[in-house]
Amino acid sequence: MTTGGRPIGIALVSGGMDSMVMAEFCTRESDLALLHVNYGQRTEAKELLCFHAVAEHLKVPSSRRLVADIGYLKRIGGSALTDSGIDVPNADLGRVGVPVTYVPFRNAHLVAIAVSWAEVIGAKNIYIGAVAADSSGYPDCRPEFYEAMNETIRRGTKDGSGIVVKAPFVHLLKKDIVLMGKSMGVPFEQSWSCYREGEKACGVCDSCALRLRAFADAGVPDPLPYETVPD
Amino acid sequence: MTTGGRPIGIALVSGGMDSMVMAEFCTRESDLALLHVNYGQRTEAKELLCFHAVAEHLKVPSSRRLVADIGYLKRIGGSALTDSGIDVPNADLGRVGVPVTYVPFRNAHLVAIAVSWAEVIGAKNIYIGAVAADSSGYPDCRPEFYEAMNETIRRGTKDGSGIVVKAPFVHLLKKDIVLMGKSMGVPFEQSWSCYREGEKACGVCDSCALRLRAFADAGVPDPLPYETVPD
Repeated sequence: MTTGGRPIGIALVSGGMDSMVMAEFCTRESDLALLHVNYGQRTEAKELLCFHAVAEHLKVPSSRRLVADIGYLKRIGGSALTDSGIDVPNADLGRVGVPVTYVPFRNAHLVAIAVSWAEVIGAKNIYIGAVAADSSGYPDCRPEFYEAMNETIRRGTKDGSGIVVKAPFVHLLKKDIVLMGKSMGVPFEQSWSCYREGEKACGVCDSCALRLRAFADAGVPDPLPYETVPD
Repeated sequence: MTTGGRPIGIALVSGGMDSMVMAEFCTRESDLALLHVNYGQRTEAKELLCFHAVAEHLKVPSSRRLVADIGYLKRIGGSALTDSGIDVPNADLGRVGVPVTYVPFRNAHLVAIAVSWAEVIGAKNIYIGAVAADSSGYPDCRPEFYEAMNETIRRGTKDGSGIVVKAPFVHLLKKDIVLMGKSMGVPFEQSWSCYREGEKACGVCDSCALRLRAFADAGVPDPLPYETVPD
């Protein structure tokens, strides 16, 4: 389905800075529908507010927003983001291996939901804000994962569905995403990246550390309040 | 993880005849954990009862059963199984193309849930009772879909996870599945295949027609009561 000649695209919007900038970026190519997934993560309520803020900013009506609940990922556990028995560690950006904040195979669930929705509404493009190089090293953020996912989509949907998942920022540094977002006037103050569920972002988890480094490297002030900002 | 040298396997059990026989079959290879998914299908309550009946029959304890809810597939709709505005059609086994009972990309969701669980409990094998040749022609039941899914799993989980999805019955005829189930003493009376939500199976939807043909071809009586049994 197209509207006025433009394809429909489904952007996965978590409420974090990457997907916020990506959604704005993808309006160049597609008319957007927005998908948000609650998976029992600690910051679920906060992220949902940020999702709707992005949707308001992009003027995407309620009829084109889908919020899906996959609370079973919390029951499956095995991640510091979903399992209250596993503490969120402080940042260690030099770490080798997959950190305990990895939510097993999570992004496959997010893409699968988008694909089902795309098949029904006739969307062709699915956008996910995965970042590979400058990230925590999650296996489901690697570009080769999305290549394989595309073959799975091609074979597992109706012939000719034409649905493709794109990770347009997968090769970028987060610094580049900050600069792009700034140039587009993205409301970074309405995003949330912290893994912890405080009133302010903690400033010291992996996700805060990556975000703070990105803003610092870009020379852009981060508008979010932080509990702690390491030197 | 293995128990007594045997790998753990997760069998997807819908409550239908194929996955019921498959689960029994896979006990040869793996110690089983069982996964059932509610996706807002018309026969959700009935299928869940059948799932637990299979689990009891196989003596799989509650701690090794997972029931996941993905009700968002009902909100996405687009299928006669999940959308009350689309009638379940009567059988047309000679049909060309994908029928309206297709639930878009559903099996990708089922496998993704199993993969996440497998990564946490250390299971290596995931079993799904998909049947390709003798079926309704759903794209996510094709063997090539599972080949692509395996590559996606390999790339999207931790290196060395060793998780593989297997569709051991994908090339069988349903008749063969009936014969195998009979030889293993599977309780077919506790399975449910009908797409409609009646007290008895309708006998005339695609799924009933495929099942009735399979039992007839196998020369085995189907213990389920039917509203209508076509000549």
